[in-house]
Amino acid sequence: MTADDAYRLRYGSGTASAPPAAWNDVLAQQLSHRSVRAYRSDPVPDATLAALIAAAQSAPTSGNLQLWSVVAVRDEERRTRLAKLAGEQDFIAQAPLFLVWLADLARARQITTELGSATAEAADFVEAAVLAFVDVALAAQNAALAAESLGLGTVFVGAIRNRPLDVADELGLPPNVFPVFGLTVGRPDGFEDTAVKPRLPQEAVLHHEQYALAPQAAYVETYEEVLNAFYADAGLPAGWIERVATRFGTVAGLKGREHLREALRTRGFELR
Amino acid sequence: MTADDAYRLRYGSGTASAPPAAWNDVLAQQLSHRSVRAYRSDPVPDATLAALIAAAQSAPTSGNLQLWSVVAVRDEERRTRLAKLAGEQDFIAQAPLFLVWLADLARARQITTELGSATAEAADFVEAAVLAFVDVALAAQNAALAAESLGLGTVFVGAIRNRPLDVADELGLPPNVFPVFGLTVGRPDGFEDTAVKPRLPQEAVLHHEQYALAPQAAYVETYEEVLNAFYADAGLPAGWIERVATRFGTVAGLKGREHLREALRTRGFELR
Repeated sequence: MTADDAYRLRYGSGTASAPPAAWNDVLAQQLSHRSVRAYRSDPVPDATLAALIAAAQSAPTSGNLQLWSVVAVRDEERRTRLAKLAGEQDFIAQAPLFLVWLADLARARQITTELGSATAEAADFVEAAVLAFVDVALAAQNAALAAESLGLGTVFVGAIRNRPLDVADELGLPPNVFPVFGLTVGRPDGFEDTAVKPRLPQEAVLHHEQYALAPQAAYVETYEEVLNAFYADAGLPAGWIERVATRFGTVAGLKGREHLREALRTRGFELR
Repeated sequence: MTADDAYRLRYGSGTASAPPAAWNDVLAQQLSHRSVRAYRSDPVPDATLAALIAAAQSAPTSGNLQLWSVVAVRDEERRTRLAKLAGEQDFIAQAPLFLVWLADLARARQITTELGSATAEAADFVEAAVLAFVDVALAAQNAALAAESLGLGTVFVGAIRNRPLDVADELGLPPNVFPVFGLTVGRPDGFEDTAVKPRLPQEAVLHHEQYALAPQAAYVETYEEVLNAFYADAGLPAGWIERVATRFGTVAGLKGREHLREALRTRGFELR
């Protein structure tokens, strides 16, 4: 894909963002990202999974602490059960591989207490959770891009946080290990029909020297038009603004995730 | 770089992880990642910055909510002040571009309340912070890889969380926007001298069907040897296990980040 094409798809033809002079295969792969929710059944070979994990482990990790793990779920019955736990999303059962990405403080706690500390007291703080959640996200994004570069489709599944304690039981997680999100991986069924979703204008998210709040409203309006054109093409109802408001307006929009703090504490993330 | 070479550097020659059959330019770029802490002064052109942000915006974002922003800091005096706030790390002042990545609930809150909700009540929950922190990490990892693909060096800077309220003041952040980490970007000075850091064996982080805690200790021991060989080559003191234990053993290891929960609440992240 050329830079011009990639930019037009990512920002919508009506926006002013000029394509960059800089362009290469990595950027082309990144900009052509789309979420895939329909999969063929061909299994993901072990050698491919190894490549995804090597990519994930090559991502930066704060202080080289490596505070994450991942469970590869291929068993069809387990995928079906996880699909039910994660908002009844059938494509989780359909995809041949479901990676569940874990914030993992268990390894670090064990290392710390074995070296003689009575407790790993720093692991009880919000900071420890941030370290682990950021680490696992950096790793997973590398794995997702690696999968796409190998012709596979993916989609992140935040809905495993609807019922995280049940997911933890299903995966046999020990204390201090928490399921953050899932990632389905498989050969796309009808990839050509999946469109690149436009994002907010660059000017909405990129600030220079200091944050500028005032111009945001105009960029959101521009985006609403770009995205409504996209939704119309896809046969979907209009309204990004309304979708955002529905998600944040009431506790009901959280779909069980209003209990996340409690679930984290149950699993040993004290969030002090 | 060949797959064999990349794997040997990433896992150490003593480890069993076989290189994958799958290999391409994206994987080669990912596996050759290393952190860069010495920069030349050549500025990063606007077109390059635009490419990094386009890559970042192309990352997945939960429900297309796009709960992040980024401040590009080029002003030398501001970089110098931020370097002081972030643990006196001089390379932040040295790199021509410092990107400060922000969890941004301000835009979503504004959209929600303008559409008629009295409050954006879901935004007060831990889940909202998780959405934003994961979103911004996925985006930033794409930007970091894009930068490396263009011959630039980067390193993530978690130390902006040592004094996040001062960083927020420096960047003029409104309420409900929080600095999560920084990323220095610039032409590396002596890249050839920077080594790829080995990671834990794949078997330590990759689990099949269910999490396995028992085998971890042996993998940690293997890794300690691999990493000590790396440290010896780099002229650094030995001991990954000890580094982890120092980080988590006492509150002092948090270097001010023990106040992160309080700082988040001050900035409007209630973490309910």
